[in-house]
Amino acid sequence: MAKPMNVVCLAGGTGGAKLAAGLQDLVGEHLAVVANTGDDVRVHGLLVSPDPDLITFWLAGVIDEERGFGIRDDTSVAHAQLVQLGAPDWFELTDRDLAVCVYRTHFIAEGGTVTAAQAQIARSMGARARVLPMSEDRVHARVRTPAGWRGLQEFLILDGAKVVTDVERGAAMIEAVELEGIAEAAPTADVLEAIAAAELIVIGPSNPVISIGPILALPGIREALAAAAAPVVAVSPFVAGRAVKGPAAAFVAALGRPVSAAGVASLYRGVIGAMVMDEADPDPPPEGLEVLTYPTLMEDATDRRALAERVLELGRAMI
Amino acid sequence: MAKPMNVVCLAGGTGGAKLAAGLQDLVGEHLAVVANTGDDVRVHGLLVSPDPDLITFWLAGVIDEERGFGIRDDTSVAHAQLVQLGAPDWFELTDRDLAVCVYRTHFIAEGGTVTAAQAQIARSMGARARVLPMSEDRVHARVRTPAGWRGLQEFLILDGAKVVTDVERGAAMIEAVELEGIAEAAPTADVLEAIAAAELIVIGPSNPVISIGPILALPGIREALAAAAAPVVAVSPFVAGRAVKGPAAAFVAALGRPVSAAGVASLYRGVIGAMVMDEADPDPPPEGLEVLTYPTLMEDATDRRALAERVLELGRAMI
Repeated sequence: MAKPMNVVCLAGGTGGAKLAAGLQDLVGEHLAVVANTGDDVRVHGLLVSPDPDLITFWLAGVIDEERGFGIRDDTSVAHAQLVQLGAPDWFELTDRDLAVCVYRTHFIAEGGTVTAAQAQIARSMGARARVLPMSEDRVHARVRTPAGWRGLQEFLILDGAKVVTDVERGAAMIEAVELEGIAEAAPTADVLEAIAAAELIVIGPSNPVISIGPILALPGIREALAAAAAPVVAVSPFVAGRAVKGPAAAFVAALGRPVSAAGVASLYRGVIGAMVMDEADPDPPPEGLEVLTYPTLMEDATDRRALAERVLELGRAMI
Repeated sequence: MAKPMNVVCLAGGTGGAKLAAGLQDLVGEHLAVVANTGDDVRVHGLLVSPDPDLITFWLAGVIDEERGFGIRDDTSVAHAQLVQLGAPDWFELTDRDLAVCVYRTHFIAEGGTVTAAQAQIARSMGARARVLPMSEDRVHARVRTPAGWRGLQEFLILDGAKVVTDVERGAAMIEAVELEGIAEAAPTADVLEAIAAAELIVIGPSNPVISIGPILALPGIREALAAAAAPVVAVSPFVAGRAVKGPAAAFVAALGRPVSAAGVASLYRGVIGAMVMDEADPDPPPEGLEVLTYPTLMEDATDRRALAERVLELGRAMI
């Protein structure tokens, strides 16, 4: 077997996290996952970091696949108590999740960095790859809806079902997306170093607008990707004109882009050199990109590893 | 039945909390319990308030009587996760307890008072009596041991067994007790108003040194008790020369006082007009105090209510 490649994977929610798990199977600690922090939110005063944690739980093998987030076999005793006390109930932190957020909040309050907190969480839970929050600075994605501005988590949790089940209606609800704080935010030194040292950079099949979008919008990231020696390969999150999970289709449609590999490519223009698209996607990216067509749906560990292998092969062929 | 008396009960740990529960049975919302906050402690960055919570759980009928603290049928999922992450494990906050502390910490961080936080916790959990933290200001009880200064909770948890099982050895370990911050702390307006409006003031059978001691040491409290119209009745925590539970005997012995009603009376000199002592206590307080001898052990709700009735009768007779 060849020496493992140094791989960087940009990721947000489930799709990106699953592919990261597949890549970890192949290159282990040679993988660094750059995680979106744009939908971080404070709940009960605690720092909740949905994407970095989701990625960590996938890498550590403790993800609750049934719910699609959180830790397997978790309980919700503390949440029920919080609600009895009068705390807001819209964001349910199950007990192990709550513990992770208590730990992170305290770690950072004591002077630790966001990066070091996530590193300790990932290491102690058993992840082999590194999970790198994109920034130490607060970036807060917001959505303008007909009812006014909403924080992203608020929007996803309170309006999520509508956005996912009816893309057109969902897209109409998304009048604008704003990344509060992005102009003053910087990528971390760890992120920039990982990108510079990478032999392959993968953009995972996460939401191109609200998961990958904030990472690419960080000042200096596009320049760092352009300066990197490694090729950049994106995996489209769309299968046959739909997102596998979550509101990616509605968000891409809301920007007036097609819900397809071509639509995703238009958002990553100037960043990527290749794209993996699903074999059921009828709308390939424009010429000038390397394209690999493959069944991208990841139902289990075998699928995740197989897709990761194709991505590595594509990257090797581009060097 | 006579109109319920307005009763104020000063309390710390289990004994005081049990008597408060008995008093609540008799006078309901006419009871205000002034709770020691001298062993409040930060755990994982959360504000833990052992005595006010213990009292609240007793009043709300959710106390875990088997453990002697915490909430019945609680789980410890979050604590196990925190320990896996690398957090210190000496102070175990079970899941519902953790929720209470998360709620309190956030409530206060948002600008709420300690008093309002505890009021909301007590009300939402179902307590009828009021639970009044003694002060908004931080008072931190510390113990000097042969190994150096220790926070009170640290001392009780790490050395607790020795202190409880061997009073002489325990007393030797307690070289000094310091109430950090007490000179700058003030009793709350709610506490002073409750004392002024009381028809009976009860000092519960809690640790006279580290539970009742901090309340009485607050600047202005002894004056407020002296100025109150209500008689002050103390219930001794000692039965036949021993504490029913906890380290009260070792702390009283460490101050060179007898482990008896007489020893307790010496600590409350100038404050109390009457004392309830156990029928098995061979060492009555000195002359000048009203004394009621009674079986003070509270095994169940009937015992708690019966002792509370005797205390109310004693108080009524003194008006």
